[in-house]
Amino acid sequence: MNTLLLRHIAIDTYKENVAYLHRNCKLYRSEGFQALSKIEVTERQSGRSIIALLNIVDDDDITAPDELGLSEQAFAQLGAPERIPVSVAHAPVADSLRQVHRKIAGESLALADYRAIARDIAANRYSKIEIAAFLVACSELGLERDEVLYLTRAMIETGRRLDWGEPLVVDKHCIGGVPGNRTSMLIVPIVAAHGMLIPKTSSRAITSPAGTADTMEVLAEVELSPDKLHEIVRSQRACLGWGGTAALAPVDDILISVERPLLMDSPGQMVASILAKKVAAGATHLVIDIPIGPTAKVRDRHRALALRKLFEFVSDQLGLVLEVVFSDGRQPVGRGIGPSLEARDVLQVLENDPRAPVDLREKALQLAGRIIEFDPDVRGGGGYAIARDILDSGRALAKMEAIIDAQGRRTGPNHLGRLRHDVAAARGGAVTAIDNLQLAHIARLAGAPMDKGAGVDLHHKLGDTVQAGEPLYSIHAEFNADFQFARESAERDCGFTVS
Amino acid sequence: MNTLLLRHIAIDTYKENVAYLHRNCKLYRSEGFQALSKIEVTERQSGRSIIALLNIVDDDDITAPDELGLSEQAFAQLGAPERIPVSVAHAPVADSLRQVHRKIAGESLALADYRAIARDIAANRYSKIEIAAFLVACSELGLERDEVLYLTRAMIETGRRLDWGEPLVVDKHCIGGVPGNRTSMLIVPIVAAHGMLIPKTSSRAITSPAGTADTMEVLAEVELSPDKLHEIVRSQRACLGWGGTAALAPVDDILISVERPLLMDSPGQMVASILAKKVAAGATHLVIDIPIGPTAKVRDRHRALALRKLFEFVSDQLGLVLEVVFSDGRQPVGRGIGPSLEARDVLQVLENDPRAPVDLREKALQLAGRIIEFDPDVRGGGGYAIARDILDSGRALAKMEAIIDAQGRRTGPNHLGRLRHDVAAARGGAVTAIDNLQLAHIARLAGAPMDKGAGVDLHHKLGDTVQAGEPLYSIHAEFNADFQFARESAERDCGFTVS
Repeated sequence: MNTLLLRHIAIDTYKENVAYLHRNCKLYRSEGFQALSKIEVTERQSGRSIIALLNIVDDDDITAPDELGLSEQAFAQLGAPERIPVSVAHAPVADSLRQVHRKIAGESLALADYRAIARDIAANRYSKIEIAAFLVACSELGLERDEVLYLTRAMIETGRRLDWGEPLVVDKHCIGGVPGNRTSMLIVPIVAAHGMLIPKTSSRAITSPAGTADTMEVLAEVELSPDKLHEIVRSQRACLGWGGTAALAPVDDILISVERPLLMDSPGQMVASILAKKVAAGATHLVIDIPIGPTAKVRDRHRALALRKLFEFVSDQLGLVLEVVFSDGRQPVGRGIGPSLEARDVLQVLENDPRAPVDLREKALQLAGRIIEFDPDVRGGGGYAIARDILDSGRALAKMEAIIDAQGRRTGPNHLGRLRHDVAAARGGAVTAIDNLQLAHIARLAGAPMDKGAGVDLHHKLGDTVQAGEPLYSIHAEFNADFQFARESAERDCGFTVS
Repeated sequence: MNTLLLRHIAIDTYKENVAYLHRNCKLYRSEGFQALSKIEVTERQSGRSIIALLNIVDDDDITAPDELGLSEQAFAQLGAPERIPVSVAHAPVADSLRQVHRKIAGESLALADYRAIARDIAANRYSKIEIAAFLVACSELGLERDEVLYLTRAMIETGRRLDWGEPLVVDKHCIGGVPGNRTSMLIVPIVAAHGMLIPKTSSRAITSPAGTADTMEVLAEVELSPDKLHEIVRSQRACLGWGGTAALAPVDDILISVERPLLMDSPGQMVASILAKKVAAGATHLVIDIPIGPTAKVRDRHRALALRKLFEFVSDQLGLVLEVVFSDGRQPVGRGIGPSLEARDVLQVLENDPRAPVDLREKALQLAGRIIEFDPDVRGGGGYAIARDILDSGRALAKMEAIIDAQGRRTGPNHLGRLRHDVAAARGGAVTAIDNLQLAHIARLAGAPMDKGAGVDLHHKLGDTVQAGEPLYSIHAEFNADFQFARESAERDCGFTVS
């Protein structure tokens, strides 16, 4: 009776399933559907169903009156061929929304509540606005320590969980916010050269000028299938690829897809998100880097301590061995900001080039040292020296080369943006502050991370003495419009304080 | 440089503007757009721009690589012809989101903050998820009394405001939640017959089995242009049409489009929403009906009092004369639940039919009496008798007939659903409770409000004594599937308590 023929609509709606129904479809009015209604689409034969947001079509070429169109992701999720009969109905309201309303009203929720919410989110039963409601209810004032643990557990349970079959699987994570902080591309080869298993997957930049995946992509292929990634991890004990984590804590990806545009980043959500992903990826030992600085994500030591305690509480309960390291977040790490510039810094460190940025090298050695000390055979305090030996001896470079070859070396031209502008100090004096946010903003305006060669190259760091008119940094860009935007922004606020 | 040709995409995305860009469009990767990004589309010539959510298209027939498609509402909002050059850019983050984040963090906001938020929402600068974040931040625990006033003012200021040029423009509003509560269709003709101006616009049902507009539509046309509505109000001193309010407090419509699917209904939002709409519509005197009952929106007198005080505080500050009336919300009003059944009840009352439901008549007279007492020439306490005289004398019926003729009489068949099932009492005794929510649910399952003749017809009310097997109510439906769903739901829970 209410059967329609399935049609694939070649529209990418990312993590929001969209269904298309013609306005003259006999079901449209009789069912009381409206645009933006949530509907349930069921394949008649298998009984498999998905939830989607409804768009109403007035063009037979897009969706005919006897058809039900699904956007690309929704079509893939239903997993049925075109022209197969499907039925549609009002989507049931997710049961766990009652728990979300209790949270909105200020109650604390139990593990069972978070499990119900995570299951419904994983099954795509929440709309974006329902997810936003959940996130806001859980933000700053809202999550108790136990609730962060419950949410983390619930996110782990609703996805796949990798088991590498080894007792020691290490990983590192930086909470972000500091440009140029490409320590992973140094830590991974160092730690793997020590023989530890570090199956690190990296992310692309969303709001920053470069993610590890964007920077690694200057040197090697990063878009690898999960199978290929696993094969590389088996052979190299490490990888620096992108993705392959979609099935791990999938609720986290869905929450992030709403958190990011909302610019929300509450401590509870952050801890749950990071730990769920790492535990699901099979990590047993984890080092967390928390940069502290006035323009970093964490402004002061007081907040950093509260965050560390939250990380420690949840990881202890999960049986994950975790070390939190506070680092200097008062300025960018290294010199380059942008994929090619950051790749240059990383290679200089690996190659023991005398021009290599000391702060990037030192930070990577500190963090790698902490990870190496997870090795029961390494004496407490001995990790740093081992890491330094591996780096100085060229073994880290050799391991990096092996990883690059395994992932697929990119041999294309790796030039910096053809347009260059030097931003000069307005007056002489000492550099007393560098604004991470403004420099990241200028690098993004210049074209990073899309244009690999675009970004900002720092010539001075905190404590340096500069003359009036001396270049503080160079802006590199590929396209004129980007170049102008970046220059104008730097003119309004160069990001450096000289006094 | 980044110019595309505008194309109208015949997809209705309701209050969410959607833009379509081909994956091979040169701007797609170079700008770093992603599906679900918020983009700003600007018509090059006029500089006019709109904000839209981005969908990525993989089908040239929907959107070609040199085109920028806009969904129906987005296209109308930009107001430019097809093939005109447009540019696209990342949408700027609305400035007032900073205020929303302060609200999320638990701060109180000032009038200027609410003004900034309302302006950005009215200009479509908020995505659905940003609106959801704002609503949750403002919910139950979040809005102080002053903030409700600020939000109301800001919503009024960001839309049109009607001025009827008369000192006394009356209106009534029920906060809802009680089925069958069609008092407006009695109050409007009574009050207008007394000579008062009552330019009431009504809404269609969203979650209930019938709105006033759905019920009025059984008798007359309700979808009238704003001009036509105004003409009717001028000639009849009243109307019972639908819509024409989109330009009045438009922020309210946008907030409601997110509140409804979230099932949110916080007191602060409710008061701001109702009062902003009424003040913008030009009302000077308003009666608010708050039904109280265990299955009504307001459960007890304590909550009703808190809500009344909030209504009074805000309306006093706005210079709106307001009376709040508490009514009996323990059961549905009248007998019918569903458009045709409720229209029958209304006509029986207007026609002084001896079968007319007494509770509907009495409630309408009470409320109409309170409104009539806004007339300075009417003695306090004298309104009810005037209302009763107008009804008993047939003047209310005559006014209703005139309104129906002015809007356009519908003469089609007004039958009840052809399928009927009587739900019988499982045992004898007195009816001690009737569940508004369950009866509304059964009526909706039966097909109301889409099928005018579908719904529930009550044969007994609270306090009645029934025999085992005696019908409590009849279910009417037009279609078999609906009929079965409604019967099954009534079998699981008939909604009546007999003891």
